Amino acid sequence: MNKHAPVPTITTGPLPASRKVHHPGRIHPDLQVPMREIDLHPSAMEPPVTVYDPSGPYTDPDAAIDIAQGLPRLREGWAEARGDVERYAGRVVKPEDNGFATGERLTPAFPRQYRPLRATGGRAVTQMAYARAGIITPEMEFVAIRENLGRRAAKEQLLRDGHDWGAAIPDHVTPEFVRAEVASGRAIIPANINHPEIEPMIIGRNFLVKINANIGNSAVTSSMEEEVEKLVWANRWGADTVMDLSTGRNIHNIRDWIIRNSPVPIGTVPIYQALEKVGGVAEDLSWEVFRDTLVEQAEQGVDYFTIHAGVRLPYIPLTANRVTGIVSRGGSIMAKWCLHHHRESFLYEHFDEICDIMRAYDVSFSLGDGLRPGSIADANDAAQFAELETLGELTQIAWQKDCQVMIEGPGHVPMHKIKENMDKQLATCEGAPFYTLGPLTTDIAPGYDHITSAIGAAMIGWFGTAMLCYVTPKEHLGLPDRDDVKTGVITYKIAAHAADLAKGHPAAKIRDDALSRARFEFRWEDQFNLSLDPDTARSFHDQTLPKEAHKLAHFCSMCGPKFCSMKISHDIRAEARAQQGMEEMAQKYRAGGDLYMPADAAGDD
Amino acid sequence: MNKHAPVPTITTGPLPASRKVHHPGRIHPDLQVPMREIDLHPSAMEPPVTVYDPSGPYTDPDAAIDIAQGLPRLREGWAEARGDVERYAGRVVKPEDNGFATGERLTPAFPRQYRPLRATGGRAVTQMAYARAGIITPEMEFVAIRENLGRRAAKEQLLRDGHDWGAAIPDHVTPEFVRAEVASGRAIIPANINHPEIEPMIIGRNFLVKINANIGNSAVTSSMEEEVEKLVWANRWGADTVMDLSTGRNIHNIRDWIIRNSPVPIGTVPIYQALEKVGGVAEDLSWEVFRDTLVEQAEQGVDYFTIHAGVRLPYIPLTANRVTGIVSRGGSIMAKWCLHHHRESFLYEHFDEICDIMRAYDVSFSLGDGLRPGSIADANDAAQFAELETLGELTQIAWQKDCQVMIEGPGHVPMHKIKENMDKQLATCEGAPFYTLGPLTTDIAPGYDHITSAIGAAMIGWFGTAMLCYVTPKEHLGLPDRDDVKTGVITYKIAAHAADLAKGHPAAKIRDDALSRARFEFRWEDQFNLSLDPDTARSFHDQTLPKEAHKLAHFCSMCGPKFCSMKISHDIRAEARAQQGMEEMAQKYRAGGDLYMPADAAGDD
Repeated sequence: MNKHAPVPTITTGPLPASRKVHHPGRIHPDLQVPMREIDLHPSAMEPPVTVYDPSGPYTDPDAAIDIAQGLPRLREGWAEARGDVERYAGRVVKPEDNGFATGERLTPAFPRQYRPLRATGGRAVTQMAYARAGIITPEMEFVAIRENLGRRAAKEQLLRDGHDWGAAIPDHVTPEFVRAEVASGRAIIPANINHPEIEPMIIGRNFLVKINANIGNSAVTSSMEEEVEKLVWANRWGADTVMDLSTGRNIHNIRDWIIRNSPVPIGTVPIYQALEKVGGVAEDLSWEVFRDTLVEQAEQGVDYFTIHAGVRLPYIPLTANRVTGIVSRGGSIMAKWCLHHHRESFLYEHFDEICDIMRAYDVSFSLGDGLRPGSIADANDAAQFAELETLGELTQIAWQKDCQVMIEGPGHVPMHKIKENMDKQLATCEGAPFYTLGPLTTDIAPGYDHITSAIGAAMIGWFGTAMLCYVTPKEHLGLPDRDDVKTGVITYKIAAHAADLAKGHPAAKIRDDALSRARFEFRWEDQFNLSLDPDTARSFHDQTLPKEAHKLAHFCSMCGPKFCSMKISHDIRAEARAQQGMEEMAQKYRAGGDLYMPADAAGDD
Repeated sequence: MNKHAPVPTITTGPLPASRKVHHPGRIHPDLQVPMREIDLHPSAMEPPVTVYDPSGPYTDPDAAIDIAQGLPRLREGWAEARGDVERYAGRVVKPEDNGFATGERLTPAFPRQYRPLRATGGRAVTQMAYARAGIITPEMEFVAIRENLGRRAAKEQLLRDGHDWGAAIPDHVTPEFVRAEVASGRAIIPANINHPEIEPMIIGRNFLVKINANIGNSAVTSSMEEEVEKLVWANRWGADTVMDLSTGRNIHNIRDWIIRNSPVPIGTVPIYQALEKVGGVAEDLSWEVFRDTLVEQAEQGVDYFTIHAGVRLPYIPLTANRVTGIVSRGGSIMAKWCLHHHRESFLYEHFDEICDIMRAYDVSFSLGDGLRPGSIADANDAAQFAELETLGELTQIAWQKDCQVMIEGPGHVPMHKIKENMDKQLATCEGAPFYTLGPLTTDIAPGYDHITSAIGAAMIGWFGTAMLCYVTPKEHLGLPDRDDVKTGVITYKIAAHAADLAKGHPAAKIRDDALSRARFEFRWEDQFNLSLDPDTARSFHDQTLPKEAHKLAHFCSMCGPKFCSMKISHDIRAEARAQQGMEEMAQKYRAGGDLYMPADAAGDD
């Protein structure tokens, strides 16, 4: 850490017109499930709109934030109450864990160190194990309440509008439904027993589509405040999980700062740190170094690991004629190791032992797509699908061990191949959640790959992908800055929400309708406040009509009062209702009458 | 015009590494069909990549640009050569045409005024009329050459990859194919005989997907240079047509400046100007004012008119229970007129006479969707589809008069209703080209509606929409500035190209593959130059790795040399090829052999 660098502040405080509320549980009454309520103008005469809120205590004005303390440990005791875990001394931090950084260059250790928990007697302490045993954990009830966005069960069947491609989204999510989904493997709750700070969330095709943002230290001087702020910033705009893709020095200590301050599950790619430990030489990697890294990160509380165990030696030749070869970092590292040693991947060979570590801490698998296509030309090719078949086999092995599993997907896929990719994943992995990067639907727009990929992400989310990994405008070109992270997150919230709408999620349309009513009624403030990015919406409006009075104006900033269609539309509605009992006539018309044809116009064409 | 305002310069000059080339015709050897060739680095050992180029002479360093002269009149004489047109005095410009602007407030008339052409003897001088008569016009051959992007006919069937949902995209576009498509009504070539400056282009499901950008004077002080620059700027980034949606004063004179300087077809919504002429009072509109406006604009050279003739009196009650009523300006103006007079729309009643004007100048119809949904809640509703049925009827009438027709579409449509909308349009309008605004796939992201709508635009383009009207980030909030226009155009080029790829257009993938090869081979300059926005791609790269030397670096700016998967992938490829005759092994593997399983690893899992 460079002590001369300015200390970035952590962004706190609520979003405009927003209030954090907490809903209690029934089975577990102590639960405090967070949601955000957006208040509307009194003239709307509408209740607040409740939205999903992954931002954690940072947007709660009542919360005291001190990143050296970490977040409250909400789940403290939940794992222990289940009686199958123990606290133990844990692995000793080694100099190579932080890339041998010392002195000023060493990011300080997080001030509070906890003895880690792990399963006793080789047990599986995973949500899947409990689900299969018929136990509804607090985590399960938590996510059930969270997914309903504060809605109570409807007495009757809701009017549903969507096409879910065979998913089975319930009208109302019950804790039992969550349990059954987790037991079947169709959903996961990434929640390491050593990450009690998280507000549990669920990833599965029958739930709201989630998004992930990637962060990572960009330089040796990156401070822990910077990294925590990246996390907080991504969550503020809607990231449901965050992957820490840090490389280089201080990787262990920075991860500790991130986890202790994260209200969302944290994912990592352990092979990155393992490679650092062997000086960056892929062929020097070994199962022992990798296993040690898994334990190190599991003890810290990482909630899911990307593991590229599907990159098998026999598949590497399938990449030989590709336009862009192997574009996954983890995949290329493993491919290099395999080729150099002319051996099968140690991740594949030791997959059973990896499962044993995962189940002892409830780290979820994110089975990496090391052979994903890096270009339109390589989409859905033999290498990609060969690996996917292996990921399907590994899913079965992990499930036998009660491990939670999701499957990573591409990448670059033209629109006409997206459905095929989704269907193949569902079939091969028997419904395990799909977690895709985009996909980008064309290669020709570097600088705009948040958009090329949002198209693919929205579609694959609709088809059944459970979580979408964001892509920022800097993809392929450089490191995302703060604005890029926000743009990436908002873009992916759009994709995920568009998917929820199209799937017919029963709560998704509430926000669209509230915003559209606000738009039609010229409640500008409500329109800003209900949007994914109120600050940008407001500033765009202000660029054209800056005055405060215009926020009350009954016309659009684009057209002015004379041409405003919405204003005319209101006039029409008022006029029609007054003149003619319009509603009644509309009904008659729908029944087939040609009510309005005036005598003098008939046949006058 | 405010003479104290700074005179904006017109943006000229080629894009990076780009050269404008012209291809001659065979039937019409004098044709000069423009394309852009992007040169690659010599190390690529690849020919230049040819891309579609709607930017006109502005990107040609050999062209002298003087907006007071207007562009060269390429098509001068083409219409006259067909022997069925006459020059005549034309309508006299009236004070109300420019909103009664006088003195300093009056934008000067374009310096060169031409006597307009029109058909003689009530003839149809439309591309459709000639196509039906079996004539291949120069316009038809021009667009055939243009659509092929310089490719010659392949001797054998091309390897095609795509799913075209029943479209019939040929391997190679012949002039005869263009003629047949125009004759059938499945495609239009918007080309007013009074707009000889255009480089002809085609809009149809079996051709490259096109995009439109909207411009319009934003204030009374808007100068003609500003408006011409908006046009040039939109075309530079890829707009295939431009709609001039100006309101207020000087509307006539500014349109003249735009048309005389436009290499692309210009569309307008004549009801806007008609409304200005009656002081902004919708109920004071009349067929006479509207007809006069059509003739005025047809004589100037407008290539297509949006006409909301489907907003019929009986449909207005269908909008009563909508969340967002009527959101089309033209639609709401006509609805107000109909309700006020309790009469059928004069556009609907006089549609025959409108056709007679259109065919005398070859102005194409863009049948407006005045009842399009303005929110997710209103998508695909009774009002929208009732109007679409009427647009289908009107299409038949227009076709009987040999008028070219395209159909406008929404708007706001969730993903699961997009295909239904497209299919309904194709069926109802018997294949007339669909021209949609987006659609936006969610309402909750004002400030990002270029993205919410790019998702819908890419999908509907894939399903068969022929032209996509752009949406800028300022949609719903304010007036787009220069950056917004560029963002909107690039975003829509992405959507259109993603659609072309998915449809399996034979030339679309060439650019993706060239860019991906450049990426894999670390040809950074080629990667920038092949992208839709070279300037942004380069500047994003420079933010992370600014030095010139890094443009030659064999690693990515994101990960550095140690972690670069592409670098590792190259190493792998080299190593594998050297060691093992990798290609051969890959072939064997594909044939089923499990070549690489080493003895010591088998069963060792």
